Amino acid sequence: MTTVSGTRVDVISRDVLPPHSSIVVSARLAVTVEGAEGVVDLTGELRRIVADSGTAEGSLHIYCGHTTCGLVVNERDGGLDLDMGEVLERIAPHSSKHHYAHDKLRTPAERLVHGERDNGHSHARAMVATHPELSIPITSGALYLGRWQAVMLAEFDGPRTRELLARVHTALPPTTTGSTASA
Amino acid sequence: MTTVSGTRVDVISRDVLPPHSSIVVSARLAVTVEGAEGVVDLTGELRRIVADSGTAEGSLHIYCGHTTCGLVVNERDGGLDLDMGEVLERIAPHSSKHHYAHDKLRTPAERLVHGERDNGHSHARAMVATHPELSIPITSGALYLGRWQAVMLAEFDGPRTRELLARVHTALPPTTTGSTASA
Amino acid sequence: MTTVSGTRVDVISRDVLPPHSSIVVSARLAVTVEGAEGVVDLTGELRRIVADSGTAEGSLHIYCGHTTCGLVVNERDGGLDLDMGEVLERIAPHSSKHHYAHDKLRTPAERLVHGERDNGHSHARAMVATHPELSIPITSGALYLGRWQAVMLAEFDGPRTRELLARVHTALPPTTTGSTASA
Repeated sequence: MTTVSGTRVDVISRDVLPPHSSIVVSARLAVTVEGAEGVVDLTGELRRIVADSGTAEGSLHIYCGHTTCGLVVNERDGGLDLDMGEVLERIAPHSSKHHYAHDKLRTPAERLVHGERDNGHSHARAMVATHPELSIPITSGALYLGRWQAVMLAEFDGPRTRELLARVHTALPPTTTGSTASA
Repeated sequence: MTTVSGTRVDVISRDVLPPHSSIVVSARLAVTVEGAEGVVDLTGELRRIVADSGTAEGSLHIYCGHTTCGLVVNERDGGLDLDMGEVLERIAPHSSKHHYAHDKLRTPAERLVHGERDNGHSHARAMVATHPELSIPITSGALYLGRWQAVMLAEFDGPRTRELLARVHTALPPTTTGSTASA
Repeated sequence: MTTVSGTRVDVISRDVLPPHSSIVVSARLAVTVEGAEGVVDLTGELRRIVADSGTAEGSLHIYCGHTTCGLVVNERDGGLDLDMGEVLERIAPHSSKHHYAHDKLRTPAERLVHGERDNGHSHARAMVATHPELSIPITSGALYLGRWQAVMLAEFDGPRTRELLARVHTALPPTTTGSTASA
């Protein structure tokens, strides 16, 4: 578990997989941002998942099943958060003066079902600035991230708790290794 | 086949793969948008491909081999289409007053070879707002999409028919299963 | 090796992988851009890596471990480079009048450690316009790229030499093929 100024990452469950699966770990992460917008650094938790899996060569796949937040790979830096806020305000403004069709066209009944505050700008920001999924290589037992790279969830519609799926794919499947060892 | 207001998705062919391949389905989709811009929802067709494949654990990879359209994962909503149109007009305007070097620098001969109308803005929009490829997890036999997520082709240079490659990768290769079954 | 007007791509090393690995090639590429910004076409080198690997069905994964450059798939065209420069100047301006928090908030000591010129705009441009990683299908022994598609590194913080990791994943693992052949 990692807590960074009002944010939180937890592994909430692990799926059971057949022993000969090339996916060796499938973990659900709960990620909480307590403000309306915020960035959560997932790097530490993801490195732990890879290390615990004992995978030497393969890749980590991360999937974000949401439409108003997404994944970013960049430097973890408070200055950059401010800069991206400015860039995104230019691209997809969020102010009481700017109205999105996504928000305006909803009926009160639809609003009730969707349980949504206005979030047209959040959808647009997620589409332009984030990725719904990422594959990161695992080499020599560790995540192959660049020196300045962090893997982050960027939230544009908080406060919310989001679920991510993180799966470790091995390039050396257990049964193959097993049958070699038994030979 | 799915038809949504002037758009159309068809599986046009399936590649033959060796029986022990970890890619168990490789399908070519033809996607048609009849307007100059438009969004086609691929979700139903992709769910069917995954269900028909009988794959329990793995992933679906979708590849878009084009440069003026691309893949988007977000909510399927007419309001959002209007909003993204506005966002993209801000980023990469499309008007008779705005000229792109991509369009201006072409000779008439090049235009003939490329068979292109002006589409500088289409290239820019595809680069900023879409993905050329996506991997979506398959868990317990189904696509792992979030409640509000749809997988869409966003066309910026229509009307055209595009070809996508959708491939199902299993984490439980047939031969491994086969040898287990024969034991 | 490919040289395109002040840019350069080289395979600098190949990782040794176990013989039964589903990753059959893991190559490090050094990519140099000699200007402050520039685009390097990687397509030729990537096609060669795939052809040399002898892989019939699978995928090529490319990972960029940097935060101020990234990968782009689009048409290779000088006009488009100019257009994207204009689009990105609109989104994340680079001028002596525009100041980024990422640059302003650094202490002289931090600047020394990071060895950085001002590059707030470079981070923002990489986030909005590029991908940190790409998976491209390999079908019938070749990269499945569209007719107009090129795979490029877009540099926003040059001159620099960057390292990319390119790995070929086969869907027909050698040991499986081997055991079938020996039967």
